Amino acid sequence: MRLVIVGGVAAGTKAASRARRLDPEMEITVYQEEPEPSISECGLPYFLSGIVEERERLVARTPEKFAQNDIEVLVRHRVESINVHSKKLIVHDLDAGKTFEDTYDRLVVATGARAVLPPIPGANLEGVFELRFLTDADRIMTYVRERAPRRATIVGGGYIGLEVAENLCSLGMECSLIEGEDRVALAYGPEVSERVEEELRAHSVNIFTGEKVDEFTGEGRVRGVKFGGKELETDLVIVGVGIEPNVELASESGVEIGTTGAILVDKHMKTTAPDVWAAGDCVETMDLTSGEPAWVPLGDTANQMGRVAGTNAATGEDTLEFPGTLGTGIFKVFDLGVGKTGLSEQAAAEAGFETLSASLSTYDRAAYYPGAEKVFLKLIVDRATGRLLGAEAAGSSSDKLIDVCATALWGRLSYPDLVNIDLAYSPPYGPTLSPVIQAATILSGKFDRAREGVRATE
Amino acid sequence: MRLVIVGGVAAGTKAASRARRLDPEMEITVYQEEPEPSISECGLPYFLSGIVEERERLVARTPEKFAQNDIEVLVRHRVESINVHSKKLIVHDLDAGKTFEDTYDRLVVATGARAVLPPIPGANLEGVFELRFLTDADRIMTYVRERAPRRATIVGGGYIGLEVAENLCSLGMECSLIEGEDRVALAYGPEVSERVEEELRAHSVNIFTGEKVDEFTGEGRVRGVKFGGKELETDLVIVGVGIEPNVELASESGVEIGTTGAILVDKHMKTTAPDVWAAGDCVETMDLTSGEPAWVPLGDTANQMGRVAGTNAATGEDTLEFPGTLGTGIFKVFDLGVGKTGLSEQAAAEAGFETLSASLSTYDRAAYYPGAEKVFLKLIVDRATGRLLGAEAAGSSSDKLIDVCATALWGRLSYPDLVNIDLAYSPPYGPTLSPVIQAATILSGKFDRAREGVRATE
Repeated sequence: MRLVIVGGVAAGTKAASRARRLDPEMEITVYQEEPEPSISECGLPYFLSGIVEERERLVARTPEKFAQNDIEVLVRHRVESINVHSKKLIVHDLDAGKTFEDTYDRLVVATGARAVLPPIPGANLEGVFELRFLTDADRIMTYVRERAPRRATIVGGGYIGLEVAENLCSLGMECSLIEGEDRVALAYGPEVSERVEEELRAHSVNIFTGEKVDEFTGEGRVRGVKFGGKELETDLVIVGVGIEPNVELASESGVEIGTTGAILVDKHMKTTAPDVWAAGDCVETMDLTSGEPAWVPLGDTANQMGRVAGTNAATGEDTLEFPGTLGTGIFKVFDLGVGKTGLSEQAAAEAGFETLSASLSTYDRAAYYPGAEKVFLKLIVDRATGRLLGAEAAGSSSDKLIDVCATALWGRLSYPDLVNIDLAYSPPYGPTLSPVIQAATILSGKFDRAREGVRATE
Repeated sequence: MRLVIVGGVAAGTKAASRARRLDPEMEITVYQEEPEPSISECGLPYFLSGIVEERERLVARTPEKFAQNDIEVLVRHRVESINVHSKKLIVHDLDAGKTFEDTYDRLVVATGARAVLPPIPGANLEGVFELRFLTDADRIMTYVRERAPRRATIVGGGYIGLEVAENLCSLGMECSLIEGEDRVALAYGPEVSERVEEELRAHSVNIFTGEKVDEFTGEGRVRGVKFGGKELETDLVIVGVGIEPNVELASESGVEIGTTGAILVDKHMKTTAPDVWAAGDCVETMDLTSGEPAWVPLGDTANQMGRVAGTNAATGEDTLEFPGTLGTGIFKVFDLGVGKTGLSEQAAAEAGFETLSASLSTYDRAAYYPGAEKVFLKLIVDRATGRLLGAEAAGSSSDKLIDVCATALWGRLSYPDLVNIDLAYSPPYGPTLSPVIQAATILSGKFDRAREGVRATE
């Protein structure tokens, strides 16, 4: 039995390891186009600044390590096509410059996602980068070492752009951030965007929102960014306007693509082709809150999907299920932690919910305990049923509050459940009642008043 | 309509404020024996050491503040008896030295709990203290100021004893801790106790487990502690061997006491007497995991109960319910955070469960991210159903992991739910897969092997 896995970042390597554990006899080969497998892509911004000092720390396992486990990982190998009928692959060995045919009994597609590169004139100038792979980080760091840029421009105010801004600032560069929409961190409500923009300004990042880049200028090397009728001098540009799933290989082989543009899979991570599973940033999953198809390319989710795909590919049965995602995420920008789970008010409205929300800004521990800092929390619930739909947090202990809310969403809890929930309290770790309980209690009052309002007009 | 509340720490004052909010017309009086209401008892250890510098920070609201809200708070007033038939109280004004009669329409009993003082000879010597009220802290601090003790002995290795040990050490005292059982932190499994004892030793605390104190020695002032045939020199003793509910007032008035020794209430916090509610450290509630009666005296739970009792006392109806507790708790000892929720393995066994557990020690963030520290986590599940029964954590981010597990318990989740749960990941905030997910995945393997074992022997 031969298992081939296309792509070896998070989902692919997880699937390989899982399959090996379940089936010691199976032949397992992973093809990976980049020169290293098993990269922590989420760590790349911190590598730029030197917060993460050693490059090898970002490579969880080398091909040699996989080989010890009898998993063949072939890097710098690009799979060019898949024939799902004859179960054959055409593979290009980039270093040897030759192409060969391989066969599989079972296949896992884990081709990931790539940075979207908007067609901006000058995007091919030296000094204009994206940051998706370790090789991108290597190129940026070589450029920084050789050209010592003093002014950096980040295009895109999503979490990658924000993390990059922090890390370039910590290298002493003067940073500007350009975002096409009217605020950064668009996956969040405006209260969170405001806090993120405050944090950026507090660290001297110049923010330009509602601006589209017209052109990168310079001769050979980038020297400026033109937008909104002005030109900003710059020595380095990092474009982080989004990513898109790598689905062409699967699509061209006849595997069905979902409505989000990512590969369609069932709960067992099976594609529409026989004996082909898919996992990670290239697949579509379900948003458990809205019940709608969703594409949520994140490292932790990719690992979980990889485990399911690897298990089922090893057994050949529908052994495990991946239920879907909540779209939980967190990022750090300077000293501010910003997290979310479930639907934003906007996403909830788009999914057809009428919502009620409660926001508060309170302390992360007993107000009298040293180091107490503020945290913002917003809970969003379904007005019809009271069920929690989403949460957003910004500030100290955001990661904890979001994980609590994610667990509540996972358990389909409603606001009254959260009013009396028994969370851990001690002065160094929280206020007497968790911000989650406080926000749920505010919601309780809002629902009471809404009901009284109804009664009064009856 | 006159509402009287007996006891004004957490549950009592919360009930008063809540009733006032719901009913602007109600007459509300709170009787409180101690000189201040609305004290943060959980903050007292940190006040001893000066970590919390200002005494007034521990008093959330003064009687004057309550008066602004038209709530009469009478401190240094002890309610001596309640007649639940005639709805009359006998109250002793400690400062005036006189006794008077009061009446109520509705009553909330929030008499709290008191330190257990074991009958040890010499316990009345100067320098032997308990730490329960702000007045206790005042007495200890006066003693410390006047007598400059160099050696302190803490009797009792529960969370109060452990917090006190940390805070006295930080004052430069040489600290010894004596625990009657064979390990500290008995509410936890032995792995956590070991870690706590390591942390104590790392901060030069002398630990004596399995030792009962025979006598405190000294003339007038404490000079030594005798146990196990030896005598330890000491200048200060703090006894923290446990607390017990203050139920005599309720019990003598004919209010029924539950099997745990605390006041019996229904889900609406109603006692067995008409128009009498009770809340806080004096009442019995339900352990939601075992379904058994439980007495869990904690500040956050007291607040939640107080809200329910105050609401129902204000409306006179069964407006709100308090569902019960998970026994979630957390404490800090030096640099170690230690938390739990649900049942320990021992408590689960006592409740009739056969359990399976998974433990791990892993990093609190991406291993390559600076500052990564270890955290221990144990999940305990029902072997029959896979349902989560409890969790324990020790180390960095314990508070987050325990809150996630508490929410999972609240939602009655099982280990397979936790394998794929969508928690927040970013390198500064966690490893790619949360320790909760990792532990659930280990459990998944254990269940698989248990099933295969069954199959193999069939």
